[in-house]
Order: sequence, then structure tokens, then C-alpha cells
Amino acid sequence: LHTYRLGFIGFGNVGKTLLALLESRRAMLEQRYDMTFMTTGISTLRHGSAVDHDGIDPVKALAAGNLGELSAFSIPQDVFEFIRLSQADVIFESTPVDYFSGQPAVDYLKAALSAGKHAITANKGPVVHAYRELKTLAAKNGVSFFFESAVMDGAPIFSLFRETLPAARLDSIQGVLNSTTNMILTRMELGDSFDRAVAYCQEIGIAETNPQGDIDGWDAAVKIAALVTVLMEFPLLPSNVDRQGIAHLAPVDIEMAKSQGKRWKLVCSAHRSGESVVARVAPEMVGMESPMFHAEGTTSVVRFETDVLGPLTIIEKDPGRETTAYGMLADMLRALSRI
Amino acid sequence: LHTYRLGFIGFGNVGKTLLALLESRRAMLEQRYDMTFMTTGISTLRHGSAVDHDGIDPVKALAAGNLGELSAFSIPQDVFEFIRLSQADVIFESTPVDYFSGQPAVDYLKAALSAGKHAITANKGPVVHAYRELKTLAAKNGVSFFFESAVMDGAPIFSLFRETLPAARLDSIQGVLNSTTNMILTRMELGDSFDRAVAYCQEIGIAETNPQGDIDGWDAAVKIAALVTVLMEFPLLPSNVDRQGIAHLAPVDIEMAKSQGKRWKLVCSAHRSGESVVARVAPEMVGMESPMFHAEGTTSVVRFETDVLGPLTIIEKDPGRETTAYGMLADMLRALSRI
Repeated sequence: LHTYRLGFIGFGNVGKTLLALLESRRAMLEQRYDMTFMTTGISTLRHGSAVDHDGIDPVKALAAGNLGELSAFSIPQDVFEFIRLSQADVIFESTPVDYFSGQPAVDYLKAALSAGKHAITANKGPVVHAYRELKTLAAKNGVSFFFESAVMDGAPIFSLFRETLPAARLDSIQGVLNSTTNMILTRMELGDSFDRAVAYCQEIGIAETNPQGDIDGWDAAVKIAALVTVLMEFPLLPSNVDRQGIAHLAPVDIEMAKSQGKRWKLVCSAHRSGESVVARVAPEMVGMESPMFHAEGTTSVVRFETDVLGPLTIIEKDPGRETTAYGMLADMLRALSRI
Repeated sequence: LHTYRLGFIGFGNVGKTLLALLESRRAMLEQRYDMTFMTTGISTLRHGSAVDHDGIDPVKALAAGNLGELSAFSIPQDVFEFIRLSQADVIFESTPVDYFSGQPAVDYLKAALSAGKHAITANKGPVVHAYRELKTLAAKNGVSFFFESAVMDGAPIFSLFRETLPAARLDSIQGVLNSTTNMILTRMELGDSFDRAVAYCQEIGIAETNPQGDIDGWDAAVKIAALVTVLMEFPLLPSNVDRQGIAHLAPVDIEMAKSQGKRWKLVCSAHRSGESVVARVAPEMVGMESPMFHAEGTTSVVRFETDVLGPLTIIEKDPGRETTAYGMLADMLRALSRI
């Protein structure tokens, strides 16, 4: 029974849910994977940080207003020093990330990998901005860099290709990957104005205070760029995605689609074009024969065309609170089983 | 660059397509997986058999009326002797199988595994009738037993759970898994009588001369039993599936469904019930919000509910000729990467 030491950088909803999920699976992980774990470090920006090599009490960590009270050390407010001090085998990174640079997550992940720790992120920013660099760094240090939760929550999109479709070439991707815009469009079909639909998404907590990144298609662009970069092995920046948001869609457009038996969806797509890959995010009118038509609210859909299978579509319906955290847990098991 | 020796038991459409696919990927497999291969044995029931330790010429094998002409040895008409003589590292099994016993495939696979060869089958029969035995035998001999093509052609259903969803518990399965009945129902919606629809399926080559196994739901029952046995880790025989076919559906039923905006589908389903699993195959009227509604012709759909993700649906649209063969190629790469 091997004991792994876990460190968290960022301890918001995702980090907390992950810690709770890990604890709820403790007996199963011991039994099925012959492993156990303890949390030796948690670093946050505004709620203090804690390091304890004997393990931080998870119940206290989940309840703490200031994590500093649980620390066996005096912790510098520097994440790089934290990574070193934590003695963690696995670092879970889930901090707020800037779309356009992938920072500060990229630097944290680099530091973790360079220190010989497996690095697992829930963020897509580092994937589009530093995938090759982080992957190379991981290989050099004999550890793993995984990010299953970065797109479609914890649904196994990246590992589907990495693990289950060897020797396949991915030719095209098409899907609905941004849940805020999808919920806005669903609400507008029910009669909401655009502004009212946005307000609804904020009320139920799926849209941020400033939802412009979703509405303008940036979030979707980062997601399709991440899929292209990893699965098509073609580095693509979000700024190279031909991008159009949904802000110009008015109730009259929604009605027009409805009268044709169609629905507007913010469609992400990418396909090979010679040696390059062309990617696009734009609202499209979709007919009911498409699985995208039926993706309501927070449901995500993605369709892959390869050179070996018929088109393969994956639908993740209404992901729950634990879905993102589960993706990180699955990444951890993948990383540790490769040691 | 390691050279692997491959043996084929059964060399009909699936075996031939696999050999051609392997040859078309030869350069890619060398480059990406640092491996090469040669075919050292092919065994058939009615077209002779060949063994050559220097490799059988693939072009000649694909064209041969009688494989015996290509053999460097005099081959006994006994598959067990063939397995020994072939010196293969990997055996691909794709012989006609009896639903109710899984034979003779089960015995062939046992012999291959016992001889320390990886065994890969396209048949679902051995999975429902001997999964645990074959898996145990593989582990004992340090080799792999894989069968990705047994359900939904080469779509990565089994490896999805084995490789990408660790520590997840599968709670229910629902889907359309038999393409003959699905095509019959699609044709009846277009106005064909039941008999005419069956004849159409035979004409285009998706239904067998005797399609009763499809029509009565046996093929679907074997498939759901295979999924339950492997993915829910609950051994279930096809005879324990509550099974109803589609023979009683008349044009009036098709019309009634249509008038309600629905379609008949032969639905396979399974869910946990206490410590047991209950499975069923029966025609159901499905509404357009379900991905099953849109599965026309040979398209397959399956939906999984787990304890960690929202419902995950996989749709494989119009699998091509190579799909089953690709599943076996992917199994080979999985098996060899585990050595």
C-alpha cells in the first residue's frame, strides 16, 4: 500500500469538491489500486495556505476560513516556495487563469513538473498556451501532465484518443462546448430577451459576473484550440480561431430558426486543410437530426471524424458538481499507474 | 524495431480487411510505435490454411483461393495444431460463432492464451460465455485478451471504461446495438412491409440469410450481456436477458408511433438492482429528444450512467468496412504496449 502526497494550488469549488471526492473514494482506492494518500499542502490566494507533511485534516481544510491556521510551517505567500515545501507527489492546479496567456497556471505547472511532481490542471489555458512545453517537461522529469477536465468537464475526451484510439488520425471536430451561451440560447427559445437570459445564467451560477468571454465565443475558442492542439497535434492559439459570438442574435433570429424546425447553437468546429487545421466558432442553425440540436442547457456534445471509424459523437448530459473533480481524480490514477 | 508475428483464425471479410489495414499502416506503426510485423499463419475452415515463419505474402494471402498453396508446412486441419505451429505472438480470432455456447471461438482463444499468445477476438460469444475464464488465463500467461470489436464494431466502448474512467461505477446502460433490426424499422417507416424490409437488409448485406437471431433480439441480448459482464462486472448470460424481438411490429404500429412524433427502436438496457443487474431487450417507442431516435440504419448508440459523470452517450454513425478491423488493430496495440 503506497501513500501518495497530494498538493492543491487553488482551493475553490473544484479543489474542495476534489478533496471531498478523494476522501469518499479512500476505501475503494485502497482496495482496487492498492494506494492511499494524504494532503500535504493547500495553497490559495485569499484564504491562506497550509503545509503539513503528516497530512492536513480534510474536514478541517474544507471548513477552514483561513488555511494558515492548519499549517505546520510558516508559509511564504509564494506558490513556487509552496510547491517545494509541500513535498507532494501530485499537484492539482485549479486557479483562476487568464485566457490570453494561460498564466499564472503555466508557471505553476512548470514549477511542479520541474520539481518531479505529476501536474494535473482543470484549466484549458495552459493547454493552449504551453502544451508541448509542459508535455516535454513532464517526459524529461519522468512524470505526467494531464488535463482531462479542461474541456467537457470530466468526460474522457483527451484520454479517449490517447488511450482508446491508437493509430487513428483525427480529421475533424464539431461540437457545442460552451454551456453559458447554450443556456442563454435555450432561455431565449423560451421567450427570454438576451439580457434576461444572461441574467438567468448568472442567477443559477453558470455565468460569471462578466460573461463577455462566453458571449463573445472566447471560451469556446480556447476549448476548440485545446482540442486541436492536443488531439490533432497542431498547435493553435485561440486568436487563430475564426470567432463570432452570440451577442447579435435577437428574438427574431430565434423565431426564424424555430419556424424552420431548427435551433441556434454556438458551434465549435475544426478540420484539416492540407498541412494546417482551420478552426471556427460561430452561431449556426442546427436541424433536429444533429445531436447538437438536443444539447440543452449545460449539456455538451462533440463529434469526431477519424480515418478509421464512422463519425463518433460523445454527449455529456448535465454534468454534475463532481464531474470536473472526477476528471482530475481519473488523471491522478492515470499518472500514478504509469510510475 | 521489434517484429511481431501475427496469426489469423478465420479469414473472411473481417480478417482480410484487418490484414489490409495493417499493411496500410505499416510505415506509421514503425514510426510511431517502433514495431513491425509479419503474418506467420492463417487458418480457415474452407479455404485452407498457411503457416510460414518467414512471413506470408499479404497480397497473395488476400488473393488466394486456397491458402494451403502459400504454406511452408503441411498443415493439419486442426486449429489447435495450427496455433502451436504458427509461432504467432498475437492471434486474431474471427470465426463464425454459436451464440449459445460461444464455441468454437472460446476453445481457440483458450488455446492461444495458454500458449502465451495475445488473443484478440471480434466475437461477442466468447465474452459472454467465458470472459472471466479467458481474462484469468490471459493474466496467468502474462498476455492480453481483448475484444473491442465485439460490440459497436471498433468504437472504443470497452476501453472507454478500462482506460479512461478509472474508479467509476457503471450504474446503467441503454442503447440501440443491433443494426439489422434498426435498418428494418427504418425501412418500415419508409413504407416497406416487414418482409420487404428484411429482404432489403439481406440485399445490402447487413442481414444474414437467416436473420432470425437479429429479429428475435438474440444478437442484441448477447451484446447487452457482454457489456454487463465486462463493464458492470456482473456475469450475465443472454438467456437471462428479458428479451422481446420486433417480429410482431406491423405497419400500423409504425404509423401510431409516427403520429406521436416517435419511432420504434429495439432498445437494449441494463441497470443495477441491489447486488444484481437486470437487463432487457425490447422494442420501445422513443421520442426525438433521445439520441436513439436519430440512430438510423446501421448507426449505434449507447448511453452510460455512472456515479461520477452526467449521462455519457456515444454515437457511432454508419460504421465503415474497416471499423471492426480497426478495433482489432487497436486491441493489438494495447496488448503489445503492455508487454
